[in-house]
Amino acid sequence: MHQSKWVFTSVAVATVCSAALFIATSAGAANEDQALLDRAKALFKPLPDSAALENTALTPERVALGKALFYETRVSSDGRQACVSCHNPAYHGGDSLPLSMGIYGKVLPRNAPTVFNTALLVAQHYGGNRASVEEQAVKALTSPVAYGNASYEQAEKKLVVLGYQPWFDKAFPGEAKALSAENWGKAIGAFERTLLTPAPFDRFLKGDGQALSAQAKQGLKTFMDTGCAGCHNGVTVGGQSFQKFGIIQDYWLVTGSTEKEAFKGYDKGRFQDTKNEADAFMFKVPQLRNVAMTPPYFHDGSAATLPQAVRIMAQLQLGKQLSDTQVSDIVSFLESLTGAVPADFSKAPSLPVASH
Amino acid sequence: MHQSKWVFTSVAVATVCSAALFIATSAGAANEDQALLDRAKALFKPLPDSAALENTALTPERVALGKALFYETRVSSDGRQACVSCHNPAYHGGDSLPLSMGIYGKVLPRNAPTVFNTALLVAQHYGGNRASVEEQAVKALTSPVAYGNASYEQAEKKLVVLGYQPWFDKAFPGEAKALSAENWGKAIGAFERTLLTPAPFDRFLKGDGQALSAQAKQGLKTFMDTGCAGCHNGVTVGGQSFQKFGIIQDYWLVTGSTEKEAFKGYDKGRFQDTKNEADAFMFKVPQLRNVAMTPPYFHDGSAATLPQAVRIMAQLQLGKQLSDTQVSDIVSFLESLTGAVPADFSKAPSLPVASH
Repeated sequence: MHQSKWVFTSVAVATVCSAALFIATSAGAANEDQALLDRAKALFKPLPDSAALENTALTPERVALGKALFYETRVSSDGRQACVSCHNPAYHGGDSLPLSMGIYGKVLPRNAPTVFNTALLVAQHYGGNRASVEEQAVKALTSPVAYGNASYEQAEKKLVVLGYQPWFDKAFPGEAKALSAENWGKAIGAFERTLLTPAPFDRFLKGDGQALSAQAKQGLKTFMDTGCAGCHNGVTVGGQSFQKFGIIQDYWLVTGSTEKEAFKGYDKGRFQDTKNEADAFMFKVPQLRNVAMTPPYFHDGSAATLPQAVRIMAQLQLGKQLSDTQVSDIVSFLESLTGAVPADFSKAPSLPVASH
Repeated sequence: MHQSKWVFTSVAVATVCSAALFIATSAGAANEDQALLDRAKALFKPLPDSAALENTALTPERVALGKALFYETRVSSDGRQACVSCHNPAYHGGDSLPLSMGIYGKVLPRNAPTVFNTALLVAQHYGGNRASVEEQAVKALTSPVAYGNASYEQAEKKLVVLGYQPWFDKAFPGEAKALSAENWGKAIGAFERTLLTPAPFDRFLKGDGQALSAQAKQGLKTFMDTGCAGCHNGVTVGGQSFQKFGIIQDYWLVTGSTEKEAFKGYDKGRFQDTKNEADAFMFKVPQLRNVAMTPPYFHDGSAATLPQAVRIMAQLQLGKQLSDTQVSDIVSFLESLTGAVPADFSKAPSLPVASH
């Protein structure tokens, strides 16, 4: 009897202790979570509900036209190239290639970033030479590697022949010249502005501590402690500024990048456009939303996997050698930036056919 | 009074007469409809519910794998070519180009037909050199213009690296070598066998007289009277036999086709494969389902619009000059062969990303 009573008591005590310990741990974890959240909220922001330009409504007609044009290959010189060629729903808004491909199989000089959330970035292209998604879309029309049209007029004529006049009239009501290269850009821009991908990290930033796994939380901490968040911050976890790629040493010594014919040497980033030595090797900091879904990495696609990219960045930009655990944790955090492919994007539109 | 009564009576008589006439006309129309239906049912068949091979279930796992592979560009040499490149939901299962484009922008020798209902055809390709959709998919892997792989082994290795082993294991349970070029073909074939597009004409064949407009019915009659249905018959309104293209005169004299480098002259159809003179200019009769949605026309895309194609066919094959009304009526009938893009096809899958 005594023994069995003792056992009973002991179990009871153990239970009480363990419950108390659980409460203490739990309170500690909650405090840690709160501290992590507070720190994160100072650096990052959840996605907004809309990326519409001020005073410009994303009307259904404009978005539908933009989506059609996004998928419309017949405006390109070879009839096979469209926005969707490099920004494909099957590959989470990118194309999965190290370097993208333009008309007639021409290899483009840089990797295609995902189109998701790109409207929120400081500028478009790795070199930032396009101020907005709208400007990017317009200028692509006459790019010799993208759409390859001789002029905007040529592209506009194709759109008329394909039967897009009524689509533009509806999307830009009351405009004397509704069908124009400028409105091509505005329509595609409107569609792209709908491509936002809220992710578990947004739920975390809004206070849901369960939205990130313990490893992802540790990864977020390591991401901030290591200094990654110095550049990769804001609403798109990067994409808001330009930085030199290769602070500690030349990037190609670590990435294994090879000289590119397109650049007559190594890609010097913004310098390629500005020819200003101060811009040499300055690239737009890529956003990290959906990064786990869009290998390969860097402006030249030279890193095949995310752990490899994380390790290289720490070494090249911060002079740090991350441990395997640190890399795994950061990767786990980065995976919390993955959102679903917007349902409407993954459904191809039916495009106009030659009229009878 | 008299006058007004007369008027009243007259109106009443006119009303009675008109009602009787309506009944007579209506009965006449019903009889005519029935006669047209009986004639049509002897030549055409509604789409079946399934195009599955005998004893081969289209399991969800196999269809899902097939769809992923259909969209998967990374098995091609340039990383940009997949089945969907030439068989695109945006263009009703075709690509809208006169001639299709393969890897690295290589121009293919012939126009891409729609993938819809193609599993039901007598053979694949204009020259019929592929017995089934499965064989077509397998052989495309090593075609120097389609996927450009050096061997099936090379393609299989790529599929392993991309992470498709578990997909194949699920789709081909119990098979020792589930991931194989042969099963690539079976999976893509399974997916393509789901791409059936029932159309208003099927409802008509099943007895719904309202499914076709009066003009479409007249067009169906003209289509049969003119002799089009001599070749374009069966479940796919064509696609069940081979015929000489250019019976009355050489096709290029009417189509304006030019000599093609690929054929060292004019395309001689089946002869290009068999080298048998009896096969010279013999082509598979194209199916006409969804023809209104898949311009341009003919094996070389030489006819831009459907009325033009209809007129040329009557002249080249039957020695008949159709009137504008006859052409419009036939086009109206052909439009009744348009079915909706299968919902699942137009939604791009999310494809595996490089593993961490």
